[in-house]
Amino acid sequence: MTLTAGLASRLREILPADRVIDDPTTLIPYAYDASFWSLRSRRMPDVVVLPETTAEVSGVVRAAATSGTPVVARGGGTGQTGGAVPARGGIVISFARMRRVLEIDRTNLQCLTEPGIVYVDLNAALAPHGLFFPPDPGSGRACSVGGMVANNASGPHAVRWGTTSAYVLGAEVVLADGSVIVTGGQRSKALKSSSGIDLTKLFVGSEGTLGIITRLRLRVQPRPAARAVILAAYDDLAGTVATMDDLFAAGILPATAELLDQSAVKALMAWKPDLALPDGEAVLFIEIEGGKGEIAASAREAEKIVQRRARLTRLAEDEAAIQRLWAARAGLAAASALVFPGKHRVFAGEDLAVPISEIPRTVRRAREIAAETGITVIFYGHFGDGNVHSGILIDPSDPDEVNRADDLADRLHRLAIEVGGTVTGEHGTGAVRSRYMRAEHGDALDVMRRVKAALDPQGIMNPGKLYGDEV
Amino acid sequence: MTLTAGLASRLREILPADRVIDDPTTLIPYAYDASFWSLRSRRMPDVVVLPETTAEVSGVVRAAATSGTPVVARGGGTGQTGGAVPARGGIVISFARMRRVLEIDRTNLQCLTEPGIVYVDLNAALAPHGLFFPPDPGSGRACSVGGMVANNASGPHAVRWGTTSAYVLGAEVVLADGSVIVTGGQRSKALKSSSGIDLTKLFVGSEGTLGIITRLRLRVQPRPAARAVILAAYDDLAGTVATMDDLFAAGILPATAELLDQSAVKALMAWKPDLALPDGEAVLFIEIEGGKGEIAASAREAEKIVQRRARLTRLAEDEAAIQRLWAARAGLAAASALVFPGKHRVFAGEDLAVPISEIPRTVRRAREIAAETGITVIFYGHFGDGNVHSGILIDPSDPDEVNRADDLADRLHRLAIEVGGTVTGEHGTGAVRSRYMRAEHGDALDVMRRVKAALDPQGIMNPGKLYGDEV
Repeated sequence: MTLTAGLASRLREILPADRVIDDPTTLIPYAYDASFWSLRSRRMPDVVVLPETTAEVSGVVRAAATSGTPVVARGGGTGQTGGAVPARGGIVISFARMRRVLEIDRTNLQCLTEPGIVYVDLNAALAPHGLFFPPDPGSGRACSVGGMVANNASGPHAVRWGTTSAYVLGAEVVLADGSVIVTGGQRSKALKSSSGIDLTKLFVGSEGTLGIITRLRLRVQPRPAARAVILAAYDDLAGTVATMDDLFAAGILPATAELLDQSAVKALMAWKPDLALPDGEAVLFIEIEGGKGEIAASAREAEKIVQRRARLTRLAEDEAAIQRLWAARAGLAAASALVFPGKHRVFAGEDLAVPISEIPRTVRRAREIAAETGITVIFYGHFGDGNVHSGILIDPSDPDEVNRADDLADRLHRLAIEVGGTVTGEHGTGAVRSRYMRAEHGDALDVMRRVKAALDPQGIMNPGKLYGDEV
Repeated sequence: MTLTAGLASRLREILPADRVIDDPTTLIPYAYDASFWSLRSRRMPDVVVLPETTAEVSGVVRAAATSGTPVVARGGGTGQTGGAVPARGGIVISFARMRRVLEIDRTNLQCLTEPGIVYVDLNAALAPHGLFFPPDPGSGRACSVGGMVANNASGPHAVRWGTTSAYVLGAEVVLADGSVIVTGGQRSKALKSSSGIDLTKLFVGSEGTLGIITRLRLRVQPRPAARAVILAAYDDLAGTVATMDDLFAAGILPATAELLDQSAVKALMAWKPDLALPDGEAVLFIEIEGGKGEIAASAREAEKIVQRRARLTRLAEDEAAIQRLWAARAGLAAASALVFPGKHRVFAGEDLAVPISEIPRTVRRAREIAAETGITVIFYGHFGDGNVHSGILIDPSDPDEVNRADDLADRLHRLAIEVGGTVTGEHGTGAVRSRYMRAEHGDALDVMRRVKAALDPQGIMNPGKLYGDEV
């Protein structure tokens, strides 16, 4: 019996045989996520398990601990950093079968859910109650809420609503020895607490390297009754920074401020000319939220402020028009494929976050680097919190282009740190950005490692990620 | 030379002599904070130091580490848990001389500050820029921002704006061996990040038990241009819960929803009859924020919803009237002294947070416990996030009354856990609530201890607090 066969048979004592996968063909999809890295490095798991209960997850981790086998949690597999990919083999725990919403409690503004639930499914369950879970990642139609928590994901609305971290009130966590704890109070439904140290927020964003989350207590929010979007075009990127500052000075915090660089506008217009997006160095989508009675007044007040700097503005007030704009924004990837036939979008160096004031310099320098490396890139992002996404478009079968894309991604990551930013605003560190941790965090990386060693002394929880290792 | 004299003379090699205090009389104030516990237990420091730089703090902690001496950070000394009191002697590091605001950067919605700055001073510095730091503790006129961070403090506006944790982007931290790290990116000014594990939020709320914060990078926000307050009276506490749920269902998240129990209304009316607070089992102050142009419409929309359940409502729209209401709310302690001459407010069992739906049951049961113990209590709190404060009024020179107050506080803490809440919503654990950590957190307490041991192996950082010890 091979090592893998032995492991699989031990796991079949914990889960029904059909929820333990070890035939090589079926294992293949678990070697990938959306990262360019995973496409090329093909890190296969030895075994994949599909637990349905916390007890099963606990049993699997206990078996892994006994044998010193790596364990990697996997949600929707939409990550862009290799976070859910078994960098060093071992067991992948898929949460595909733990996706129940266990409770929605509007009075107490919270819900209890399993981590495998897909983001849009959670929001669909919340909608009839007038509630929503605010962080809104671009991969929301496919990503799991557990994956969002693991990476502290967010999206356009983080400007107003913050990141996933702000919405996790508590978690059930399977530790590296298989034992189970509940953070945020064993039986608590409190909306805030200063009791003990904040273990919940330690597990949020730790990418399964400190423990595996099996249940989430999430803060949810009343969904604002109305919204409006101001579309603003700028001749110069500097104007976008000035508009944000004007809004802040007027006491206005928009719900979103989405940036489309000229490259993104061009791609979208080739795809959907009827959007009639204006020309310029940049376009912002500024969303304002409010009650039905006053949204028109709020939007007009904000639009007047935006007009000080923008070359032109357009106000979308009816929900159909707003949804058309957001659908176009979401279709940027599709648009790129159309404009650059033969090129594929690869995810690398795609998630810089920099100070808002540094966005113009960052985007312009990034364009130069793209030109220097001869790679086509579309820039866009969540302007209101400095999150600049780069859509790298290459022919992955051209080794030289791939090399240049690697160089580009590396230089973008270094650029982010150089301008006072971070290598990842919302996608996570994973395998891909682990090598930048020392440059970004300095000696704080050693403290991260001490916490890791305290909670996972054997180093079996998602090894090869996040703590500065090269994989 | 005594041990203390030896320690003081070592510290005088690090700081100027006049910023190292070891004469017993001058040490006395540092044995106290606002907790009833500290009044009675008189835990004296051996030495107090008043550093002006991070290097000095680092030097002091290094000296403490060498000699195995406890180190306790102290901000404004307004805490209610003994958090800044040296439970086991040693060195108190006062941040009274580290209170500079180093930078305010509106474009990037952040500021850089030393931890000793008083909350109102920070907001005064931010105001000319149209900015504010949202968490708003009741002790804001005296508490330090560093203390707020240490305890993850909040206040009425946490309903809309969240707690301090949401506003700490990064921190400079002196570790238990005297070394210095920067969390949230060494040179970062990013507004969000998924890079590495979130050490910042691990230090927030850890009460100086994992490290001592010497500099803070804080997210600040544009101050909403206008607000209105709906004052609502209820015959029955259940109506307050229903009102909140009605507002949530309508997509309205108020900025605050402050609760005054009948006991608090009575005290306030005896103090300021011109407030003309209505009778009933409870009164809510519901604040709505918005732009100048639409606040009237928003407030009226909300008031109409509140009228479904409230016996009567009153709308305060001009800023002077609103400030009068909030000043009255802030004067609750003064009011109690007036209504119950000879009684003193003591802080114990004062910070329960429970699910919103459980507030009526909690307050009613708490009133019963107060009656059973024969103690006068005023109840009030931040209704919108379930935070129930109890103002215990006793004659501290009456040993029997003191014993009954202890019993009352203990039973209130246990009540909070029993109804699915937490022993502290925003004040912290400290020495006072450490004993409830096992009941509230179960095995998660052991994980807290492992993190503590990893970062402070000698146990010199604020010993006797937070991790379940009895002091």
